Amino acid sequence: MSAAEGSGVESNARPLTDELVEEVQSAIAAGDWPRAAELVAGLHAADLADLLQLLEPEQRLALTRALGERLDPETFSYLEEEVREELVEALGVERVAEIVSGLETDDVVDLLSELEAEEQAEILARLPPPERIAVEQQLAYPEDSAGRLMQREFVAVPEYWLVGQTIDYLRATPELPDEFYDIFIVDPRMRPVGGVPVSRVLRSNRSVPLRELRLKEIRPIPATMDQEEVAFLFRQYGLVSAPVVDEDGRLVGVITIDDVVDVMEEEAEEDLLSLGGLHETDVYAPPLKRAKRRIPWLLVNMVTAVAAASVVAMFEDTIARVTTLAVLMPIVAGMGGNAGTQSLTVTVRALATRELGPANAGRMILRELATGALNGLVFLLVGFLLAFLWFGDTQLAIVFGCGMLINLAGAALGGVLVPLVLERLGFDPAVASSIFVTTVTDMLGFFVFLGLATLVLL
Amino acid sequence: MSAAEGSGVESNARPLTDELVEEVQSAIAAGDWPRAAELVAGLHAADLADLLQLLEPEQRLALTRALGERLDPETFSYLEEEVREELVEALGVERVAEIVSGLETDDVVDLLSELEAEEQAEILARLPPPERIAVEQQLAYPEDSAGRLMQREFVAVPEYWLVGQTIDYLRATPELPDEFYDIFIVDPRMRPVGGVPVSRVLRSNRSVPLRELRLKEIRPIPATMDQEEVAFLFRQYGLVSAPVVDEDGRLVGVITIDDVVDVMEEEAEEDLLSLGGLHETDVYAPPLKRAKRRIPWLLVNMVTAVAAASVVAMFEDTIARVTTLAVLMPIVAGMGGNAGTQSLTVTVRALATRELGPANAGRMILRELATGALNGLVFLLVGFLLAFLWFGDTQLAIVFGCGMLINLAGAALGGVLVPLVLERLGFDPAVASSIFVTTVTDMLGFFVFLGLATLVLL
Repeated sequence: MSAAEGSGVESNARPLTDELVEEVQSAIAAGDWPRAAELVAGLHAADLADLLQLLEPEQRLALTRALGERLDPETFSYLEEEVREELVEALGVERVAEIVSGLETDDVVDLLSELEAEEQAEILARLPPPERIAVEQQLAYPEDSAGRLMQREFVAVPEYWLVGQTIDYLRATPELPDEFYDIFIVDPRMRPVGGVPVSRVLRSNRSVPLRELRLKEIRPIPATMDQEEVAFLFRQYGLVSAPVVDEDGRLVGVITIDDVVDVMEEEAEEDLLSLGGLHETDVYAPPLKRAKRRIPWLLVNMVTAVAAASVVAMFEDTIARVTTLAVLMPIVAGMGGNAGTQSLTVTVRALATRELGPANAGRMILRELATGALNGLVFLLVGFLLAFLWFGDTQLAIVFGCGMLINLAGAALGGVLVPLVLERLGFDPAVASSIFVTTVTDMLGFFVFLGLATLVLL
Repeated sequence: MSAAEGSGVESNARPLTDELVEEVQSAIAAGDWPRAAELVAGLHAADLADLLQLLEPEQRLALTRALGERLDPETFSYLEEEVREELVEALGVERVAEIVSGLETDDVVDLLSELEAEEQAEILARLPPPERIAVEQQLAYPEDSAGRLMQREFVAVPEYWLVGQTIDYLRATPELPDEFYDIFIVDPRMRPVGGVPVSRVLRSNRSVPLRELRLKEIRPIPATMDQEEVAFLFRQYGLVSAPVVDEDGRLVGVITIDDVVDVMEEEAEEDLLSLGGLHETDVYAPPLKRAKRRIPWLLVNMVTAVAAASVVAMFEDTIARVTTLAVLMPIVAGMGGNAGTQSLTVTVRALATRELGPANAGRMILRELATGALNGLVFLLVGFLLAFLWFGDTQLAIVFGCGMLINLAGAALGGVLVPLVLERLGFDPAVASSIFVTTVTDMLGFFVFLGLATLVLL
C-alpha cells in the first residue's frame, strides 16, 4: 500500500458482514453475476480481498472473472500470497499485467516479489518501460529491505525556498504522490537535512523561508535496512514518514507509516506462527500442502520427545517398582514447561522491545532464577500435599515436591537463558526458544524427579 | 503520544547504544551528574525512557532527580507502567503535576489512567482548570476505548468553505494541533461528512471550494469503540487519522496513526504474554511480585496436569505390567500438543485477521481434520519404526503408531475447534485456547495410547 489512498468519495462504503458474505455466496451459487457484482460494488478493496478469501476457491475465481474490469486493481495488493498466486495463475499473465499497471510502484513491487521468477519476468515484460525500470530497480534491493518497502515518489525541496515557492511548486507539479505527510528538505547533493510536516507549511506565511520553520528531526533510513528495523524506528520515534537514502546518503525514496503497519502485522503473524514452527499462515492451503508444511516441525519435536523419553527409559526399573511415578512424572515435566514458557515469553518480548540488553541481562537472569525458586517453593508445598493426599506416601510426596522445586527453578533459568543465548548467537529468539526450553524442562523434569525417586524410594 | 511530535530540530539526536548505556551507568556510579546529563542530552524522549528502564531502579531515580527540569516531560509517556509508577511515587505528586502539564491531553489521559485513583485525583487537582476538565471528560470514557485514545484538538471546517478560506483559518488559529494529516469536513451539526488530506489542500488553488476537491472516504469511530477494533479499522483501510464521534454522530476528537501503532504494540505484547498466562510484562518487577503474578496460571496448569495424570492413573496396572509404556506415553502426548499448537496458532491468527468466519469455518475444520489425519499417518509409520527398533516389540509398536495417528488427528481437530468455540462464546481465543488444547491432547494422548495398550498387550 502507499500513502495515496481513497480514490474518490465512497460514501456508501459498507463493512464486510457475515450476512453480506452469505448473500454473495448465494448469488454466486445461483449464477446471478449481476447481483453478485452489485453486492460487492460498494466494498473497499481491502474488504473485497477479505471477501474473496472467505469464498471457496472455485467461487473466488468465478467472481473475479465475473467482475472483470470492475475489479479494483488495489484488491490484489490486499490478498494473501497463496490466494494471489492462485488468481494470477487462473487469470493469466496478460490480465495480471493489466491489473498491475493500475497499481502504485511499491504495490507492484510487493506483488511481483511474491510471484515465481518466470511469472515475474513475463509480467515485467508487459509493463510500459518507465514503470518496468522503476520496478526492476526496486526489486534489486534485498527482500524485506527498506528499498523494497519505499515508494519512489516523494516531495523534496531545497532549504533556501520560501513557503510560497514550495506551495507553488507543489501546485504546479502533477507527478507528486497524491497524499504525503512530510516535505523533505535536501542539500544541493540531494541529502535530506530535515523535514517539515505538510500541516506546518500550510499554516505558515508564504514569505517565510523553509529553514526558518521549526524543522522536524528526520531519521534517514538506508535502503538496505531490514524492514523489522524500519518498523522499530517508526514505532520508537512515532514517525509518519521517513526518507530512504542510498549509500551516499542521497534521498531515493520515502517510507510511509501505512507500509510500516503492514510490516508490523507480518511480524506479529510470524511471531505467533513460529510457536508452531510455521512460517506463513496456511488457511488457504489444501490439507496435503498443510501436512507437508507441518511435518518438519513435528519431526524436530519427535526428536526432542525421544530425547526426553530416553531419560525416562534410564529409570525404567524404578518405574517398574513404583508405578505411581509414571502417574506423577508428566505433572513435574508439564509444570516445568509452563513455568519455562512464562519466563520465555517475558524475555522474548523484552528483547524485541529492547527493554533487555547487556546493561540489565545479569539482573534479569538473577531475578528470573529467584522468581523460579519462589514459585518452586510454593509448588513444593502444593506438590507435597497433592501427592500425599492422593497416594498417602510421605516419601513419594517429598520426592514429588522437591522435583517441582528444582524443575520450576531450572525452567525459569532456562526460559531466560535460552533466548538470551540465541539472540547473542544471531538467531531470532522468537522462533527457536520455545522448543529448546520445553526440551530442557522435560528432560530436567524427568531426570530430577525419577532420579530423586531412585535415590530415596528404592 | 499525539500527532504533535518533533519539538524543534534535534540534529544531534543519536540512537541509544549499549556503549552509551554503559557510559551513563559509569557516570552515575561515579556521581558525575553533569557528565550523565550531558550524555543523555541529545536523546529523543523515547530513547531516554528506554535508557531509564535499562538502569537499576536506584540509578533510574537518581538520574531522574539529577536531570530535574531538563527531563523532557514526554519521556514519561514512553515509560512502562511499572517504571512510571515507581518514578511518580519517588518524585512526588507536585513534581509530577508539573511534568504532566507539559504534555498533550491524550498523553496526560494515558499517564493518569494507569495511576491509582488517589494519585490520579491529587494530580488532577493541581492541573489548571481547563486542562483538568478536558482530562476528566476523557477519563470518563471506558478504558481501552476510542474516547481514551483520541486527542480533542482537531481541524474541522464547513464544506462550503474555499481552499483559501481554509488556509487563512489555519494560519490565524493558534490552538490547532501542531501536526495533522486530514482536515475533516463537517455539516452544520458538526457531523463529519468527509475528509481531505492536508497535502491535497496545499496543492489546490485558493479559489476551489472544499467540496469540489476529491474527498477522502472517512470512517467515523464511535467514542466507545474498543481500541482493538479501532486498530483493525486503521490497518484494514490504511488510515492515518480518523474522526471520533459521540452517540449523535458529532465530531468530538481525532485518533491518529501513531496512537494506533501503540495499540498494535500493546496487542502484540498481550498475545505473546497470554501464552504464559500473563497480562503484562514484568521485566521491572522484583522476584516476589513476579512470582505472585505467575502463580495463578501455574495453579490452573497444575489442575489440568493432574487431570491428565489421573488418566494415567486409570492405567497404572497396565504400566506395572508393561513399563515401556511409561517411556513412550510422553511422546504421544507431547506430539499431540505440538500438532494441536500448529492448528491452534493458524486458527487464532485467522480469527484475528478475520480470514476465518462463519462462511469458511466448516471448510477450515474439515481441512484441519484431514491435515491431522495425514500427519497422523506419517507418524503412525515413524512411531511404529521407532518403537520397533527401540524395543523390538511389534505389538507395542503398532499400539504406539496407532496412538500417534489418533492423537495427531484429534489434536488438529482440537486446535481448530477450541478457538472457534471460545470466540463464539465471546472469549478472546488468543488467551485461553492454548491451555485447553494441550489439556485435550494430553488427556486424549494418554487415554488412547494406554487404552489401546490395555486392549492389545494384556
